[in-house]
Amino acid sequence: MKTYKTTDLNKVKRGPNRASYDVETIHTIIDAGFIAHVAYIYHNKAITIPMAYTRIEDKMYLHGSLKNRMLTALLDAKEASMTIMHLDGLVLARSGFHHSVNYRSATLFGSVKRIDNLEEKDKILEAIVDQMIPNRWDSLRPMSDKERNATLVVEMTIETASAKIRDVGVADEKADEDLPIWAGIIPVKQVALPPISDDKLSDEVTIPNHVLEYYEENKL
Amino acid sequence: MKTYKTTDLNKVKRGPNRASYDVETIHTIIDAGFIAHVAYIYHNKAITIPMAYTRIEDKMYLHGSLKNRMLTALLDAKEASMTIMHLDGLVLARSGFHHSVNYRSATLFGSVKRIDNLEEKDKILEAIVDQMIPNRWDSLRPMSDKERNATLVVEMTIETASAKIRDVGVADEKADEDLPIWAGIIPVKQVALPPISDDKLSDEVTIPNHVLEYYEENKL
Repeated sequence: MKTYKTTDLNKVKRGPNRASYDVETIHTIIDAGFIAHVAYIYHNKAITIPMAYTRIEDKMYLHGSLKNRMLTALLDAKEASMTIMHLDGLVLARSGFHHSVNYRSATLFGSVKRIDNLEEKDKILEAIVDQMIPNRWDSLRPMSDKERNATLVVEMTIETASAKIRDVGVADEKADEDLPIWAGIIPVKQVALPPISDDKLSDEVTIPNHVLEYYEENKL
Repeated sequence: MKTYKTTDLNKVKRGPNRASYDVETIHTIIDAGFIAHVAYIYHNKAITIPMAYTRIEDKMYLHGSLKNRMLTALLDAKEASMTIMHLDGLVLARSGFHHSVNYRSATLFGSVKRIDNLEEKDKILEAIVDQMIPNRWDSLRPMSDKERNATLVVEMTIETASAKIRDVGVADEKADEDLPIWAGIIPVKQVALPPISDDKLSDEVTIPNHVLEYYEENKL
């Protein structure tokens, strides 16, 4: 089992039984989504903003406009951290204290650099679109030089990381189990609804396979 | 219209047409969820972690164990910031450049203090459980002194805040609209699945109304 190294930064202190440093576990959590909450420091304050990402091997990629405050702050700091979280259920215990959620989350720390090589930039922007919805990029109008030049691409090499997963039932106090209080799980899930075609689409353009497949795989 | 004051910190630079400082808009986004990504600084690094919250008027409340690294860091810093985001759809344009998401997000900045008054603490922990699922607290086994003492409650008074909302269709280049490329929206939604009762529940305990109502309101 390949693991990310543990340091004071990523070592999970609370609920360590839920923690994992396994690379495959962490990459699976990353690949199940496309939006991370990225943390940065601005005027000595920590701020977090949701951003689209893609992962290629041990590298995370973000993009934005050339003046994006967060991206330029990350480039100045030469490091970044981000968290991806998927909520899987409400855990409703017999006491308030044992209420919890089922979830999968990954927190990543790494070193940051700007990608300037145009070929590499194109490959990354393609991967960012396809992380959101697989196989979309190939159907699109190619990127223009103007768009390419207006886009800042930032790479974070994952140096340390941790996953936390809770996927079990209610964990009540033994003494509470006989109380006449309902306890259980309400699973929650992010689902896709049927695609809505753009008004301006001509009638010949039908919904492509990659969109239908996304819907089939993500509908309830 | 009551608005949060804008400062260099919360003023939205990118896509300001989607930005709002309206208190009601921001509170509505907060109240539609119960998990925020909270940002903090640890050893000069910005980190973000998802946390359960509740809002009472202009105050946000977090809780955790007494030794929770993030909460103690926020108390030391005497300030915090956090972001709440709801993903509403994938926006699939005819070019990669115009791909986007529909969403509602709120980023909050404020001053932080610890809540020690026991009555106040109880009221807040009740609100945190009821933020997750309305009307649950009253059905629970009352909190013990041990639990109360083991729980750290942190209050953040919102000083500045901003909301960003995108809820429109595809925004392609005029010149791209006639291309034979499908464009549109795939709405996404977080939904509840049917509640699963705890194994140890005795047969007399049926699923209570607040759980059935949550499911009805949040199912697809």
